[in-house]
Amino acid sequence: MTTTHSFAATLSECATAVNATLDRLLPAVATPEGRVVEAMRYAALDGGKRLRPFLVVAAADLFNVPRERALRAGAAVEMVHCYSLVHDDLPAMDDDDLRRGRPTVHKAFDEATAILAGDGLLTQAFEVLADPATHPDGAVRAALVTELAKGSGAAGMVGGQMIDLQAPNLNLDDAGLIRLQSLKTGALIACSCRLGAVLAGAPDSARDALGAYGQAIGFAFQIADDVLDVESSAQVAGKATGKDAAAGKATFVSRLGLEGAIAEARRLVEQAIGQIEIFGPAAEPLRQAAVFVIGRKT
Amino acid sequence: MTTTHSFAATLSECATAVNATLDRLLPAVATPEGRVVEAMRYAALDGGKRLRPFLVVAAADLFNVPRERALRAGAAVEMVHCYSLVHDDLPAMDDDDLRRGRPTVHKAFDEATAILAGDGLLTQAFEVLADPATHPDGAVRAALVTELAKGSGAAGMVGGQMIDLQAPNLNLDDAGLIRLQSLKTGALIACSCRLGAVLAGAPDSARDALGAYGQAIGFAFQIADDVLDVESSAQVAGKATGKDAAAGKATFVSRLGLEGAIAEARRLVEQAIGQIEIFGPAAEPLRQAAVFVIGRKT
Repeated sequence: MTTTHSFAATLSECATAVNATLDRLLPAVATPEGRVVEAMRYAALDGGKRLRPFLVVAAADLFNVPRERALRAGAAVEMVHCYSLVHDDLPAMDDDDLRRGRPTVHKAFDEATAILAGDGLLTQAFEVLADPATHPDGAVRAALVTELAKGSGAAGMVGGQMIDLQAPNLNLDDAGLIRLQSLKTGALIACSCRLGAVLAGAPDSARDALGAYGQAIGFAFQIADDVLDVESSAQVAGKATGKDAAAGKATFVSRLGLEGAIAEARRLVEQAIGQIEIFGPAAEPLRQAAVFVIGRKT
Repeated sequence: MTTTHSFAATLSECATAVNATLDRLLPAVATPEGRVVEAMRYAALDGGKRLRPFLVVAAADLFNVPRERALRAGAAVEMVHCYSLVHDDLPAMDDDDLRRGRPTVHKAFDEATAILAGDGLLTQAFEVLADPATHPDGAVRAALVTELAKGSGAAGMVGGQMIDLQAPNLNLDDAGLIRLQSLKTGALIACSCRLGAVLAGAPDSARDALGAYGQAIGFAFQIADDVLDVESSAQVAGKATGKDAAAGKATFVSRLGLEGAIAEARRLVEQAIGQIEIFGPAAEPLRQAAVFVIGRKT
C-alpha cells in the first residue's frame, strides 16, 4: 500500500483484492442449498468500500504480515459486516428495501433465505479465521476468532444493535449514546484494527493502540453517517435516509447540532491519529483512513 | 458417566452439568443490551435433552478428555443448536409459537430480539471454543472452531435448512431427502461426536468413525421425529406437529410408511453401533444413546 497515489485509489485497490478473496472463499454451489450460497454471495460480493478489511490490511502492514493472511482476516470481518447488514435490513429490524442502491437480500430473495444467508456468512467468517491458510500458528488463529467474536457478539455489535432497537424508549444520555455507538459501529471497526496486530503477534500495547484508533474513527464514521442522514437525499446515499430522525432516535447531530457534530468528528479524527503516532511514518495509510471516514459522501 | 444406572438418568445428569455450564457462559447483564442476553438465556437455558452436548462428552470420555473441556465444547454446540431453533421458529421460517411447551423467543420477546439473540448465540459458540479454558493448545481450539463451522454453516446445518425450505418445490428423490437430512440434522450431531475426538487430538480414523456414528443416529433421530410428527398430539410433543405433512414435505414416513420408517431407524441404530465397535466397552454410553434416539417420546 503506497502513499504515492490518492487514498481513494489505495482503498479501491484494496477493495479489489478483498472482493477477489471473498469471491474465492464463497464459491457458488450447484446443489439445492446453492440458493443460500447465492444469497451470501449477493450480500458479500457487490459494492461497499471494504473499509474494515482495509483497516485489517493497513494495521497488518505495520508489522509486515503477509498480505494473503491479512486479506483473509479482512474478508472474515467483511462477512460479519455484511451479515449484520442483511439481518439489519429485515422487516422485523430496520425494514429497508434498498442497500447500496439495489434490493436488499430479503427483497432479492426472500426473508427466510436472508436470515439463513446472514447466519451462513457469520459462520463462515469464523471458519475462514480458523483455517491454517489464515495463519500457521493455531494460537493466533484461535486469538483471531476470539477477537472477532468479542467485537461482533452480544458484548459488541449485536449488543449495540439491541440498544439501538430500544433507543427510542431508553432516553439515552450522552454517555448512553456514546456507548450505543461504541458497540454498534465502533466494536467491529476497532476489532478490524486489532486483528492486524493479532495476525502479527504484536504486543498488547500495539493491539490496544490500534483498537483505540479504531474506536475513535468508528465514532467519527458514525457521526459522518448521522450528518449524511440529515444532509443527503436517498439518491446520493443509495439507501433510505432521514430514518433516524423519523424514528425519534437521538443522534450526535440531534445532540450537538450539525456544526457541533462535524467539529466533534474532526476532534475524533485527531484523537485517532494520536493513538497511532507510535507507529511513525508506516501508519500513513491509517492516518489517511481516519481523515477519509469524515470526508466520504456515501 | 457410569452404566450402573439407566441411560435416561445418565443423560439427565449430563444435562444438569451442561445447563450449569451454559448458565456460567451466559451471565445476565444489567446494561441496556441486557435484553438480548436475556433472550439468549431464554433460548439456551430452559429444557432440552442436551443430546448434542451429551454426545460431545461421551465421545470425549472415550479418550479421557477432562470433563470441563468437553462440557464447554458441548455448551458451544448447544448454543448453535438453540440459535438454529430460534431462527427456525421465526415467522419468515417455520412460524412456530411454541417450543418445548413455552412461547418461542420471538413470542416471548419480539422478532428483532429473536434474530439478534440467535446471532449472539452463534457468535458466542465460537468465542467459547476459541477460549484457552476449552483447550490449552491453540491448534486444537482452532480445529474445534473449524469443525463447528463446517457442521453448522452453508455446507452443513444452514445448507440443510435452505434445502428444507425449498423442499415442497424440489421433488426430492430418496437420495435428495437423505442429503437434506444429513445436512439439516445429521451434520451438527456428527459434529458433536467429532468434537469429542478433536478435543483429544485423536487420530482421523477415530474422528471419522465417531462422525459416521453421529450421521447414522442423526438419521435415526430424524426418522423418530417424523414418526412422532405423525403419531403425537401437540400436547405430548410440546410443539406443533403434523406440520410437515401439512406443508406437503416428503418425510421418511411418507416414503417408507410408518412400519418401514421404524425398521429403517432400527437399521441405522445398528449401523451406528457398528461404527463405534472399535472403542470397545468404553463406548457403552454411545451405544445407549443410539438406542435412545429412536425410543424417545418428545
